[in-house]
Amino acid sequence: MKIAVDAMGGDNAPEAVVCGAIRAAQTFHEEIVLVGQEDKIQAILAAHGAQNTPGLTVLHAPDLVDMHDDPATVLRAKPQSSMAVALNLVKKGEADAIVSAGSTGALLAGATLFCKRIKGVRRGALAPVMPCKNGQVLLIDAGANTECTAEYLLQFGVMGSLYMEKIKGVQRPRVGLVNNGSEDSKGDPLRKEAYALLKAAGDAGQIHFVGNVEGRDVPLGACDVAVCDGFAGNVMLKTIEGVAKFMAGEIKQVFLANLGTKLAYLACKKGMDEFRSQFDQDAVGGAPFIGISRPVIKAHGSSNEIAFMNAIRQAIEYKKSGMIEAIEANVCQLAGQ
Amino acid sequence: MKIAVDAMGGDNAPEAVVCGAIRAAQTFHEEIVLVGQEDKIQAILAAHGAQNTPGLTVLHAPDLVDMHDDPATVLRAKPQSSMAVALNLVKKGEADAIVSAGSTGALLAGATLFCKRIKGVRRGALAPVMPCKNGQVLLIDAGANTECTAEYLLQFGVMGSLYMEKIKGVQRPRVGLVNNGSEDSKGDPLRKEAYALLKAAGDAGQIHFVGNVEGRDVPLGACDVAVCDGFAGNVMLKTIEGVAKFMAGEIKQVFLANLGTKLAYLACKKGMDEFRSQFDQDAVGGAPFIGISRPVIKAHGSSNEIAFMNAIRQAIEYKKSGMIEAIEANVCQLAGQ
Repeated sequence: MKIAVDAMGGDNAPEAVVCGAIRAAQTFHEEIVLVGQEDKIQAILAAHGAQNTPGLTVLHAPDLVDMHDDPATVLRAKPQSSMAVALNLVKKGEADAIVSAGSTGALLAGATLFCKRIKGVRRGALAPVMPCKNGQVLLIDAGANTECTAEYLLQFGVMGSLYMEKIKGVQRPRVGLVNNGSEDSKGDPLRKEAYALLKAAGDAGQIHFVGNVEGRDVPLGACDVAVCDGFAGNVMLKTIEGVAKFMAGEIKQVFLANLGTKLAYLACKKGMDEFRSQFDQDAVGGAPFIGISRPVIKAHGSSNEIAFMNAIRQAIEYKKSGMIEAIEANVCQLAGQ
Repeated sequence: MKIAVDAMGGDNAPEAVVCGAIRAAQTFHEEIVLVGQEDKIQAILAAHGAQNTPGLTVLHAPDLVDMHDDPATVLRAKPQSSMAVALNLVKKGEADAIVSAGSTGALLAGATLFCKRIKGVRRGALAPVMPCKNGQVLLIDAGANTECTAEYLLQFGVMGSLYMEKIKGVQRPRVGLVNNGSEDSKGDPLRKEAYALLKAAGDAGQIHFVGNVEGRDVPLGACDVAVCDGFAGNVMLKTIEGVAKFMAGEIKQVFLANLGTKLAYLACKKGMDEFRSQFDQDAVGGAPFIGISRPVIKAHGSSNEIAFMNAIRQAIEYKKSGMIEAIEANVCQLAGQ
């Protein structure tokens, strides 16, 4: 297997990307191709004595995608950018998956343009796994599709269920529809229509639909897959990040108050470290862009080398899991209803 | 001033409502009328030796609004319910404000039907104040309007700004539009149109508009007023509740781990209590339903007596603040643009 890594994407590129790729090559023993400005990448490899890391190669791409580029058109405008070259490798079958921490919009547009959606899939969806009480929950869609139809939401539920089953090993993942109340009748017309479609898929045994879930139910573990349009999903994902950061900061202040509380921290350090590790984005790696005919992993813009290593791990797992074949089999079935 | 209190609404009614009203009457020295099943209310008053509390009276209403009633029609169907009778007192000017922890949908529909919106206001909005870094933020709308137009969002921004100024004493409240990115161009058509209206109001000096805010920015204190449609606002509000509850539970487990961590908790107790008090819904009381021609406070369904006392305090503050007159003056101005 060969993973194409966009070496120039993200706040800490290329240093963190290259270091993450070195770790990944040493750990996972799969081929990794670092795509980007060759001189810069080689200099980092040399600085770490890693020029001859088995499986690790470099492919030159001179241009960069930056935040001012129009996401919808940049990859056509800059075919020699690291992201475009990496996507092209995957498109042509010269690599099996791509990892990038570059512009989310450009990656989603480019993945759809270069690699295409799986036949029958209406829209690809960004689907991060988040911590929740007693486990993890997949939020789908977290921002790829600002406007959705009920059919998209149905497909997000099916694809999300397959992800949690095949990659996270969850048996019969509980699929919930994020809504403004838990009663069956809740929501705007989009939610009411999506509820009917998801319920029918549940009744037909295609998914395990548990009905509407409210915002508070998701962090408290009411479902394994939380289905949402990309607008509300983005608000939800970022609200979770913001609240977690806010609360963690307040708790830190509690421990920093005086000598007594600082000593108290030592007693709690192990537990607090475990608590923090639940919310550690670096350990997660990135979010898969589900529904595309190739594995595409969007790493967080602020990813460090550990996060990149884990995003590469995710790409390998995604490829090995048979997710894409499973979506092909299941979504065609749904489309044929 | 006289506050009408729906004694039969909420999970802990009538006990918690009556006890909260006793405390409020003793503390705020305003008139309070408890509306509901007289025998039950009198029994609770008697049990607490509070039959003769100055300013506290009872008005009989035999019927109850329950969760199975259709919110849109229940108050017409049950004119003798505690909520309908209380709203009628306010409508007729026999009370100055209403507090209820009953069905949100029924209260919003009833307030609009009985008390009417302020002239020029397109929709009333539910607007809870939430804790954030270095202060508080008003989320408007948190669920009254599942579907919104850009004009509604503009008016939410104006009304929310007046609330934070007049009731919370914030100078030039920073108004942000909750969006799926902070750049000016972000969002669906609704958000783009609302952005233009809010920006024009900001340029005209009617509000202090700080642009788009993301979900993570709101808990981190980027604005004093977070403008949102009622669907995403409801998801956001409840996600904050859920994450706070989830994290608080995890931290509790850290302290319960062993004897050492339990002793450590004693050192941190003061700080942890202050931390928790930030997230204490009971201290907040309820959420105002802003834009109605009378003060309407929706108390949380799970309110205890402290929460009811504080919801009554909010109703008094709302009435005294001149909010309604200020909205009349400002919204008509906006509608005339």
